[in-house]
Amino acid sequence: MSVLTSRDETDLMTLAFELADLARTETLARFRPEGGIGADNKLASGFDPVTEADRAAEAAIRERLGKLRPQDGIHGEEFGVTRGTSGLTWVLDPIDGTRGFMSGTPTWGVLVALCEETPDGPGAPLLGVIDQPYIGERFSGGFGRAEVEGPQGRSILRTRDPRALSDAVLFTTFPEVGTPEEGAAFARLAREVRLTRYGMDCYAYALVAAGQIDLVVEAGLQAYDVAAPIAVIEAAGGIVTDWQGRPAHRGGQVIAAANREIHEAALAHLAG
Amino acid sequence: MSVLTSRDETDLMTLAFELADLARTETLARFRPEGGIGADNKLASGFDPVTEADRAAEAAIRERLGKLRPQDGIHGEEFGVTRGTSGLTWVLDPIDGTRGFMSGTPTWGVLVALCEETPDGPGAPLLGVIDQPYIGERFSGGFGRAEVEGPQGRSILRTRDPRALSDAVLFTTFPEVGTPEEGAAFARLAREVRLTRYGMDCYAYALVAAGQIDLVVEAGLQAYDVAAPIAVIEAAGGIVTDWQGRPAHRGGQVIAAANREIHEAALAHLAG
Repeated sequence: MSVLTSRDETDLMTLAFELADLARTETLARFRPEGGIGADNKLASGFDPVTEADRAAEAAIRERLGKLRPQDGIHGEEFGVTRGTSGLTWVLDPIDGTRGFMSGTPTWGVLVALCEETPDGPGAPLLGVIDQPYIGERFSGGFGRAEVEGPQGRSILRTRDPRALSDAVLFTTFPEVGTPEEGAAFARLAREVRLTRYGMDCYAYALVAAGQIDLVVEAGLQAYDVAAPIAVIEAAGGIVTDWQGRPAHRGGQVIAAANREIHEAALAHLAG
Repeated sequence: MSVLTSRDETDLMTLAFELADLARTETLARFRPEGGIGADNKLASGFDPVTEADRAAEAAIRERLGKLRPQDGIHGEEFGVTRGTSGLTWVLDPIDGTRGFMSGTPTWGVLVALCEETPDGPGAPLLGVIDQPYIGERFSGGFGRAEVEGPQGRSILRTRDPRALSDAVLFTTFPEVGTPEEGAAFARLAREVRLTRYGMDCYAYALVAAGQIDLVVEAGLQAYDVAAPIAVIEAAGGIVTDWQGRPAHRGGQVIAAANREIHEAALAHLAG
């Protein structure tokens, strides 16, 4: 990968926003159909609205990237891996939180990230976007800057300052949190914090970046689930690793923390 | 209570919207402070932002009602009960979902309802508003009409058609759901449905009204938690009762269902 100039960085973030806009259009068009999404909601294509939205959004992004940056790789949830030659790869999850989407909640999101490409797949993210199309809210981070644009306008994102674990707010999506062993580790941590909440999909990572909560802990993630959250949270001052403190951009067990102190305190309980 | 004319009904719904607007302003001004809400967030008043928002919103509503309809009663979460003489009482929860509010999630809401006043407290609701200030989304119902106004414009609310319990989507806010016995009853029902989700506060009731999910089951509610959801869901075609199938406007154990068939099927599992 060649060195990026400041102009390159701006152009890449602008493109990431354009890709998120494409996904916003395709997903919103299929969100909250009359009567909701369920067993009888197969479209003419044979897919239900959430699958259709997922595929249409990723297809639209791939088409745009094919025209504008054919040299880049693509690693998408729906259509797999396309290798590139630039040393950069786009990591896409058009709908993170399909169960939230099918329930009509405003907690799912479009995830777009740009990562270094390595022989083993996407490396550390350079930039990321967490977009919530229904609210019209976009969290972005990369190149040392993180911001949100939404119903209340535009502002800089900054994670919260250290506080005691007993004052901390912890999020995860499902109470089970992966395997029984992973669930037990999560439960150990949950006993130590002030408040544990569920059901937020990728929106919980955005809340860490926005300085509203302290921790998100999940297991069984894919690279495309975590690349954009890592970029946004790290640019806002936070830290994201696996449960052993190692890089998390491959997915698996993930902990996102507002700061190094609470990250360390939480890891101690996850380790047992 | 004297008979309401169609003009009265329109005026009362317009007033309910005006009251929700007041609460929207007061709550949003204190939502997502920099660094979030926590142990160190006491304001000059001595309250934290969520308590302050709760009290400021209810005070603003009470002041307006005192001017415009001093003959009505008020039953509010923050400032208790004021008896009226009109046979009508306003039932208010300025922030339903304070833990969602303090975490920055867009799932809490302002609840405003107008109920018949009985010697024992608020009776059945005539109208209700579930407002989510951050999204700018308002679900309302009463006098045979339910609608939503939000980011995607304005539309009629209608609950979803009957489907098998095994295809149904169930929501509750906390996995524990009240006492251990109540939790066990909930778990029996959760085993039968397609998907169980958590953490939505009053927003889950709005999703029933909007035809996106089938069931919400909670325990330990107050009258002000449930009056507005009952009005919105019933006007959209759904049904809300306690776990024995009796009126739920006093709170306690509550089940909200998209239709009579799924209500009956769910009650059978809650009863054991």
